[in-house]
Amino acid sequence: MEERQIARRGRSRRAATAPSAGGSNYIKLRNPFTPQEAYTEDRIAAIHQGALRILEELGIRILLDEARQILRNAGALVDEETHMVRIGRDLVEEALKRAPRSIRLRAASPMREQDYQLGSMLFMAGAGCPNAYDRERGRRPGNLEGYLETLRLQQSFDVIHMHGPSVEPQDVPIQFRHYAMMRGQLENCDKPLFVYSRGRRQVEESFEMIRLALGLDEAEFSNGVWATTVINSNSPRQLDVSMSRGIIDFARAGQMSIITPFCLAGAMAPVTVSGALMLQHAEALAGITLAQMTRPGAPVSYGGFLSNVDMKSGSPAFGTPEHIRACIGSGQLARYIGMPWRSATGAASNTADAQGASETIMALWGAALGGATVTVHAAGWLEGGLSLGYEKFILDIESLQTMAELCKSDPADDDALGFDAVAAVSPGGHFFATPHTTERYRTAFYRPLVADLSNFGAWSEAGALTADQRATAIWKKILEEFQAPSTCHGVSERLEAFVSKGTEAGGAMPEE
Amino acid sequence: MEERQIARRGRSRRAATAPSAGGSNYIKLRNPFTPQEAYTEDRIAAIHQGALRILEELGIRILLDEARQILRNAGALVDEETHMVRIGRDLVEEALKRAPRSIRLRAASPMREQDYQLGSMLFMAGAGCPNAYDRERGRRPGNLEGYLETLRLQQSFDVIHMHGPSVEPQDVPIQFRHYAMMRGQLENCDKPLFVYSRGRRQVEESFEMIRLALGLDEAEFSNGVWATTVINSNSPRQLDVSMSRGIIDFARAGQMSIITPFCLAGAMAPVTVSGALMLQHAEALAGITLAQMTRPGAPVSYGGFLSNVDMKSGSPAFGTPEHIRACIGSGQLARYIGMPWRSATGAASNTADAQGASETIMALWGAALGGATVTVHAAGWLEGGLSLGYEKFILDIESLQTMAELCKSDPADDDALGFDAVAAVSPGGHFFATPHTTERYRTAFYRPLVADLSNFGAWSEAGALTADQRATAIWKKILEEFQAPSTCHGVSERLEAFVSKGTEAGGAMPEE
Repeated sequence: MEERQIARRGRSRRAATAPSAGGSNYIKLRNPFTPQEAYTEDRIAAIHQGALRILEELGIRILLDEARQILRNAGALVDEETHMVRIGRDLVEEALKRAPRSIRLRAASPMREQDYQLGSMLFMAGAGCPNAYDRERGRRPGNLEGYLETLRLQQSFDVIHMHGPSVEPQDVPIQFRHYAMMRGQLENCDKPLFVYSRGRRQVEESFEMIRLALGLDEAEFSNGVWATTVINSNSPRQLDVSMSRGIIDFARAGQMSIITPFCLAGAMAPVTVSGALMLQHAEALAGITLAQMTRPGAPVSYGGFLSNVDMKSGSPAFGTPEHIRACIGSGQLARYIGMPWRSATGAASNTADAQGASETIMALWGAALGGATVTVHAAGWLEGGLSLGYEKFILDIESLQTMAELCKSDPADDDALGFDAVAAVSPGGHFFATPHTTERYRTAFYRPLVADLSNFGAWSEAGALTADQRATAIWKKILEEFQAPSTCHGVSERLEAFVSKGTEAGGAMPEE
Repeated sequence: MEERQIARRGRSRRAATAPSAGGSNYIKLRNPFTPQEAYTEDRIAAIHQGALRILEELGIRILLDEARQILRNAGALVDEETHMVRIGRDLVEEALKRAPRSIRLRAASPMREQDYQLGSMLFMAGAGCPNAYDRERGRRPGNLEGYLETLRLQQSFDVIHMHGPSVEPQDVPIQFRHYAMMRGQLENCDKPLFVYSRGRRQVEESFEMIRLALGLDEAEFSNGVWATTVINSNSPRQLDVSMSRGIIDFARAGQMSIITPFCLAGAMAPVTVSGALMLQHAEALAGITLAQMTRPGAPVSYGGFLSNVDMKSGSPAFGTPEHIRACIGSGQLARYIGMPWRSATGAASNTADAQGASETIMALWGAALGGATVTVHAAGWLEGGLSLGYEKFILDIESLQTMAELCKSDPADDDALGFDAVAAVSPGGHFFATPHTTERYRTAFYRPLVADLSNFGAWSEAGALTADQRATAIWKKILEEFQAPSTCHGVSERLEAFVSKGTEAGGAMPEE
């Protein structure tokens, strides 16, 4: 209890965090764009109605007994033989009434807290990658070192707003892995945290580690959203045991689930983007309904991870016209039901080349123009998520910072217009030395992180490095100089006994 | 005269063009996006008023006597000693009334003709590059071979809508270069043509070559817009001899000038984007006014090439937040005065890497969200325009085709939604074999031109090629298989005598 008080004092005292490596403050972003439309309003209504009909007439298979029971108690029609659950539109509508429109994401550092709602613009790094890649060490199975390094990279840029499990630490046995993943975040980071839904005991132990590290009692924890998880349905129309369990456990604990159907048009979903959106919408509504029937008002997010499958390779494609359209359409559906939502970028490219940049940036614009609350996989994803690339991470940060700069409103008052400066410069002259310029030039423009604007000669002499080659030095320097934020002081000590005890007891296996 | 008739019959008979290498029809595009706003409406009005004040109170230096005379006759105040011309707002307003809102761009192939207006979405390749680069031959000074090759690449993709002088054929003496450049376009291409404004005689001879090649008499030519030029002012507040002459000559001939001030915020323009926009707007309005006072109703386009200067290298930057903001703000100003407008993408990168992709695609979105009528430099620009990259061209085409796909409306009728297909696929199953998929999969998705979606193993075995490496084979194949469109038949013969005679007479030197 004493430790808890120390930790709490630490949190409230340390409001400031160290300046990020990015050198600017991109912590609170509001989406500056008018959301775009991929479909007419009446077709969005038709997609919503089609989704309700899927849930009502066809149903969704839910593999967890407890989840079926919760929905049956709320009035859904359940076939215990097939595990099919048919959810009436009245139930869905009731769930949508209960779901919060704005969710305060708490964080170790109060200044990192976020209002998760329509209009906010948050970014999460590439998540769930079984491999890691960088130009010095090559491609390798994800390990704890890679997990920690990529967490530190996330922490180092203000434009990453929520933590995610970038690289999977496969060298840590699965029953102990949640200890390592929570320690990694709690000991290195101060932003909203991520917890995997890999079974009840792992989730409960992860929550307890957050309480211990941040000095929260049970009530303080459950009155705030301190952890987020991502729930992927097994499209089409199926929620497995651990995903259903995750929705229930997070709802009961008052923590946030992002319900993200994994719909690939042409594979696990209809080949049309509109049809795939209808299926995605049905599955997301089912998850949202389960959360709200578990606990009214549970913090839950609409989500979409919808793209097309490449017909040649069978792989998921990113940044394609279909992907962009799906992002914009998902945003229309989220606004239709009034909920905050999660989108994603990503790249299928195997390396941080022009293809990789193109895929991620095209999808980033899809998410931005769809008004996504959070865009996941926004930095570092390669190979459709099979690898987290360090150089790709740095390159993507440049795009995110560009987007973040666009969230600022640009001065256009009479001083900014500078008629007098125009009057003072002769035709054919230049503005370098005018007071209007000298007063502003230090902060007038975004300073590139990786982009090299030197001319061909100078660039060639410096080794003709491509952008990904230059990015290597950047992530290395960040990792070398990394210091955990002050909110992490003492966290390791506060977690030690709990983790030792849990480890001795054999950890906690994930649930299938 | 007989030749002219043959040519004319050829044009009207051959309405169809060969399918493009891109494999799809992206000829007529309408911008599908709601234009975005970088500034509030009252600040856009303030920028417009500031620009009027610049023209009225400060004036613009115009180096061509004839241009000053035209404006003086129209009521402008001219100082013949300083060459400063002060243009009253009444004159500008009269010019804006006279300027057409929609301009039909004629072309050798009628199906390639375009309505140049707000709402249309046209792309032009990277233009005006003194060097060419490809991975096989390296970087080299632009020559006729490079000019012709890059014209053929332009012709081969439907998503390039207007021709531009991609690579400068520096091996052709400047007094004969216009012959080579017009022959190149007329003998290889069937889209709207580009003519450089490098002096009256060159322009007149270029127009005559168009008439000869396409079988047009003087009246037919001057009643349609068969040629476009780009006019760059020498920011700040200066129009040189050849640019002023170009505006006058194109207006008199009824051909289109795109008035494009070259404003770099922090160098030739104020350091603020809003201030630079005010200067750009003033210079564009001056050019538009000169055109309309030369000939009421002259086809003329508003234009912007505004970005920031990189404070470290002094180079123009592309795809930066400031560049995107400038594109969106330019679009607001163009809509404010109701005129079609030209934007640009571009890349400062020295190679076709992730930086190059990022710069071009970020700027492309700026242009698209600014509602640009035509986006210049949309494919192939490297080194801020000092080089035209063949691989970069191919990579950029992928982005343009992605944008073009988004211009199509996506089906979302009940058939497309496919409720029955969803009903027919069991939970956890797949949609590969449903009739809903098999009926549509061939055309459901955009087929990538360069993107490789194979997995890491297959990609590594195939040589681990980056996107720019793969692009080499694509442009080579296109050039190997290139065939001029049928409208080019006989053009060479029809131009022969004119060019020989002109060459014997010493050609035509550009005007300074």
